[in-house]
Amino acid sequence: MNTQTKIAAMDKFFNPSSVVVVGASNTPFNLGATICTMLKDYLQYPGAVYAVNSKGEAVKDYPGFSSISDLPEAPDLAIVIVSARNVPGIIRDCAQKGIKRIVIESAGFSEGGEDGTAMQREIDEIVKTSGIRIMGPNCLGTLSTREKFCCFYGVNPSLVEMGRIFEVPGTISYVIQSGGVAVLVMESLFYDLVGINKVVSIGNKCDVDEADLIDYFQNDETQIIGMYLENIADGRKLMEAARKSRKPVLIYKVGRTSEGALAAMSHTAGMANNDQIFDSACRQAGIIRLKSIDELHSLPKMFTEMPPLKGKRIAAFTNSGAFGSIAADLLVDAGLQMARLSEQTREKLKKAGQVFNIKNPVDIGPAPPQTYLDIFDILLSADEVDGLLPLLSVWQPFVIDCLVELLKMCKHYDKPAAIYTPNAIAKSIAIRAKHRIPIFETTEQAVRALSVSHDYYESLIKRNLICDIAPNEEKGAKRTACAQTEVSS
Amino acid sequence: MNTQTKIAAMDKFFNPSSVVVVGASNTPFNLGATICTMLKDYLQYPGAVYAVNSKGEAVKDYPGFSSISDLPEAPDLAIVIVSARNVPGIIRDCAQKGIKRIVIESAGFSEGGEDGTAMQREIDEIVKTSGIRIMGPNCLGTLSTREKFCCFYGVNPSLVEMGRIFEVPGTISYVIQSGGVAVLVMESLFYDLVGINKVVSIGNKCDVDEADLIDYFQNDETQIIGMYLENIADGRKLMEAARKSRKPVLIYKVGRTSEGALAAMSHTAGMANNDQIFDSACRQAGIIRLKSIDELHSLPKMFTEMPPLKGKRIAAFTNSGAFGSIAADLLVDAGLQMARLSEQTREKLKKAGQVFNIKNPVDIGPAPPQTYLDIFDILLSADEVDGLLPLLSVWQPFVIDCLVELLKMCKHYDKPAAIYTPNAIAKSIAIRAKHRIPIFETTEQAVRALSVSHDYYESLIKRNLICDIAPNEEKGAKRTACAQTEVSS
Repeated sequence: MNTQTKIAAMDKFFNPSSVVVVGASNTPFNLGATICTMLKDYLQYPGAVYAVNSKGEAVKDYPGFSSISDLPEAPDLAIVIVSARNVPGIIRDCAQKGIKRIVIESAGFSEGGEDGTAMQREIDEIVKTSGIRIMGPNCLGTLSTREKFCCFYGVNPSLVEMGRIFEVPGTISYVIQSGGVAVLVMESLFYDLVGINKVVSIGNKCDVDEADLIDYFQNDETQIIGMYLENIADGRKLMEAARKSRKPVLIYKVGRTSEGALAAMSHTAGMANNDQIFDSACRQAGIIRLKSIDELHSLPKMFTEMPPLKGKRIAAFTNSGAFGSIAADLLVDAGLQMARLSEQTREKLKKAGQVFNIKNPVDIGPAPPQTYLDIFDILLSADEVDGLLPLLSVWQPFVIDCLVELLKMCKHYDKPAAIYTPNAIAKSIAIRAKHRIPIFETTEQAVRALSVSHDYYESLIKRNLICDIAPNEEKGAKRTACAQTEVSS
Repeated sequence: MNTQTKIAAMDKFFNPSSVVVVGASNTPFNLGATICTMLKDYLQYPGAVYAVNSKGEAVKDYPGFSSISDLPEAPDLAIVIVSARNVPGIIRDCAQKGIKRIVIESAGFSEGGEDGTAMQREIDEIVKTSGIRIMGPNCLGTLSTREKFCCFYGVNPSLVEMGRIFEVPGTISYVIQSGGVAVLVMESLFYDLVGINKVVSIGNKCDVDEADLIDYFQNDETQIIGMYLENIADGRKLMEAARKSRKPVLIYKVGRTSEGALAAMSHTAGMANNDQIFDSACRQAGIIRLKSIDELHSLPKMFTEMPPLKGKRIAAFTNSGAFGSIAADLLVDAGLQMARLSEQTREKLKKAGQVFNIKNPVDIGPAPPQTYLDIFDILLSADEVDGLLPLLSVWQPFVIDCLVELLKMCKHYDKPAAIYTPNAIAKSIAIRAKHRIPIFETTEQAVRALSVSHDYYESLIKRNLICDIAPNEEKGAKRTACAQTEVSS
């Protein structure tokens, strides 16, 4: 299969013209019915939808059939949510009908002991011989904001809220091996800047896996890829896909400790993987390994809203002295450096007025807006500074306006700022959402954002995907693509 | 001076019958005037207030004088906010007038180079011979919610909001060597459970220091003491005060790295302290060393709302499988253990129904409220479980009601739960504030809360402040005080 065909085949998981929900019925609490409700009421899905259940009854006015063979066509996608023991038969029926893509949402396979594993093997056999592509089992399947398609089950109470993520399609795509984490991440992005492009819950991933999706996301609107993984079946395939990726790949993986690995195994049939080997493989492949679940939704904005951090020299700037000291500790811990400001830069800062400390961290008192803007400009234009860490309490509303200006200046100078406002987290989140400023929630998070931005920039150079431009040599020079590795089969 | 006299002397810093604000005037942007505004408009301070300024003019209708000697009485407290170079003269005037307590809010002393250091020495000399007690310089002074007193300057834009912390006086007292951190912590507690008793900003602490305040907080409504320190001048005194403290002492200290120490020095005249020595001294003295500024406001609720964690065996309980695996990793990292559930406990869990995984972490599907309550009871009553880590997404409103019940059950069984709701942080914060449930904002924070609770319990035993009761031996036995170390001079 060539690249184009592969992409087209995968596309229909996110944008099918017709679907069948196998297991949707009118029985109370039926999970398949919640998928029909989502498609009909919340997404106004324009394609054909069929329901298959033992009575052959219609669900949400979608026509019902008692078997797959009775369907008037072979839909682009089958969504299967029936008891695990019935799944192998359903897959065979799908194959016979000529259905090419299946999402198996049912649980109870390799994560559920011996019987489940046997059924899993039966499915694997059918897949091998039929060329059908399968997502799952034990998953939620796909969500695409641009196509307004979603086959997640059971999210009823949050459906109205969920609708919000479809309103403004974004550029981050997630692969998440857990429904709970997917819901947390999507909900959290309501209060953040980056919008969602696609979300895939891959469950036990008997066929389609994270590497397939990295390849697939190279050719759509995705700007950045976030992953939550409980186990990795084919490490080599993942690393190869990541190494070629021209988009940042951020991965949180559980099971660092044996206790964690054990817990993951009962959840999505993970195998205990060696954590240290995984860690060094990630570094080689340019994967950014996340330290907490929250980084899945907090860090992407550093990539989408800011230029990359090309060097390690950071200038901290605060209107609340203590945070400068805290930041210095954290920057050193993160392997970054406190920029040594030149005599010239210090002179300029002295003239800006109201500055308590003209050394780095730059510390100001109760200054007017122009002082903030002057200092942003002095620091961003300084050759000895690669990036900014503004730690600015919003003690007056004008600070928000200054931060909006800062965004423009970062683009102009092609240097990033990781902004933290030392205010109550609830207040910072509200400001971020309202004014579209990429504010991080803690000093730790802001420093971490600088650190991953730089790691990613260095990995692009190492992987020959861009040429290095030493920050001081060509002022204002932009990074340029010097090699484009095509993702091919 | 005996203990009672010392306490009474310190008390008047928080509850003076009369104050003079030296440096308050009607000049635009005058900082002393903001203190008068706070006392008059926001706190309706009932005591006498005098202003001292060069013109001798009244401020906010408080009578004005051109010198301290003209005051009609020696007020309980002098608040000094004038240029640093005028401070030594003012202190002499205060001594002559018989004023016994001074808060020096002016900056520009030992944190500001050689001239400042010389002035600092001049003040030190006066203090030694006069018996005056001084807070500062370079500080905000005191705030007491019960006494509705506050001498912080310049917090005008937040004053209305600030008023909220006086509405419900609480039981945490802070010593914070930075105005910015104080504001962050107070603002953050608006959205959290624990109310504030007192806040002290000690600045360069030429006299009153953190150890004096630990002693002082032993005898008021304080339940827990939080500190932000940039430097420690008398480590022995601090450790001695902490060792005797019958209330938890939580400290965040900056300057772990040389870069951080350097930055702190320009902020509040800190000396670079050896971080490793500090760390091991903390452990010996029973001080809980915090890992981030946010822990100053996030962790106290574990002490005020929950019984202590007496053993290391934790049962995790989740309705969103992934978080069980994440928690297992974090618990192991924190030196705690995943409890091994007994056959009997597992049987009970099996009967509770809807349980995907009856091993620890206990993982449930879409279950009704009673299942949640049953599982809480089974786990908390199990001899092999010392504490609970509920990781429960609020996917239905009833989960909130179950958490309210859990609080009661924790008190009944005298075992703590560190609750995390895997929802967007903004949503979790809102639930916490509205329903008064001690919800932590991340899994990391919840695990950390269990860890510090246990550390503190162990330190009480080591310091002979309570007798150890092995969790399994006497079921339902409460910890008892077996030794009360009196805090004496």
